[in-house]
Amino acid sequence: MSGSAAIDFYFDFSSPYGYLMSEKIDDLAARHGRAVQWRPVLLGPVLKATGAVPLTQAPLKGDYSRRDFVRSARFLGVPFTQPLKFPIATQVAARAYYWMGDQDHAVARSFARTLFRAYFTELRDISEPAVVLELAAKAGIDDAALKLALTSTELKDHLRAEVDAALARGVCGSPYVIIDGEPFLGVDRLPQIECWLANGGF
Amino acid sequence: MSGSAAIDFYFDFSSPYGYLMSEKIDDLAARHGRAVQWRPVLLGPVLKATGAVPLTQAPLKGDYSRRDFVRSARFLGVPFTQPLKFPIATQVAARAYYWMGDQDHAVARSFARTLFRAYFTELRDISEPAVVLELAAKAGIDDAALKLALTSTELKDHLRAEVDAALARGVCGSPYVIIDGEPFLGVDRLPQIECWLANGGF
Repeated sequence: MSGSAAIDFYFDFSSPYGYLMSEKIDDLAARHGRAVQWRPVLLGPVLKATGAVPLTQAPLKGDYSRRDFVRSARFLGVPFTQPLKFPIATQVAARAYYWMGDQDHAVARSFARTLFRAYFTELRDISEPAVVLELAAKAGIDDAALKLALTSTELKDHLRAEVDAALARGVCGSPYVIIDGEPFLGVDRLPQIECWLANGGF
Repeated sequence: MSGSAAIDFYFDFSSPYGYLMSEKIDDLAARHGRAVQWRPVLLGPVLKATGAVPLTQAPLKGDYSRRDFVRSARFLGVPFTQPLKFPIATQVAARAYYWMGDQDHAVARSFARTLFRAYFTELRDISEPAVVLELAAKAGIDDAALKLALTSTELKDHLRAEVDAALARGVCGSPYVIIDGEPFLGVDRLPQIECWLANGGF
């Protein structure tokens, strides 16, 4: 049996595999009549919980990963350039997303794409509040209101609650996709996700 | 351009994803006119080099992995049961493989399959020398000669040299497949491997 509930898509804006998934998951879900709930989180607390280090900082695995990012992007047909400043802090980006989402989901989704593409194709440093505000203004978003919101305790608490909730659900990396309770870690799980959506499990 | 050199397939006999790859890589390579060189290594020194812990022992990731082993096996159509004793030491299994390989590659390959299937479908404890010798005897291999060989310094040195050579080539997990210098980590790279073999790169 096939469900119809929204798919949860957890990611960090600094995650190359998260970016690749962001360019694929909406179309894939739509082909199977599903919506996707985007949920940016912070990989820092997730890695702390799992005891892992960032991929590119691990001996041997770091070299492999940098090669695999580029090759996986090519394989999936997604434009990608490895940022020199990597990984970066993504609190501001994630907070901006949730602030927009409280007002308009479609605007937030579109801005999340803008952030990902700015970082992974134009090498803009989206850890900088000024860059996030500039991109927001270009997208027609009230950057003065956003600037104010970014200083609020409520918005910081909102992101922290999202990260805590993600950890409680078992999120252990980026991207992490949950379909009707079934978790899929990594953009390389796309074929399994497609099979799961087509058949309501396998 | 497509090469014709043998593909290197690195794995640990205790690795579920390595086992899944072992059930797929030979046929896939053969469809593209390639042979495969199986190279069992020890994940212990590899994890030590990369600073990682065994997947199933990592918080959050452990639960996910156990679920993913079973689901990935189902997705690939490979029989699989999670061993309770896991992971296990695979020195004896790997040494037995290299000893056989010095005499007959086909016999060694076939025995490697026997070891993998004994562990992951019959839950035999292939860390036990007695189990390896029993399986060897059943396969018509001179188990007395194997028993003697397993005590030899030469065979221990052989395996150690293989592990050192693997680390020097960047092997950072199991399975790890190298095609004409291009490395692929994980059974989830099968679609990329297929594309690479079909097109001589991408």
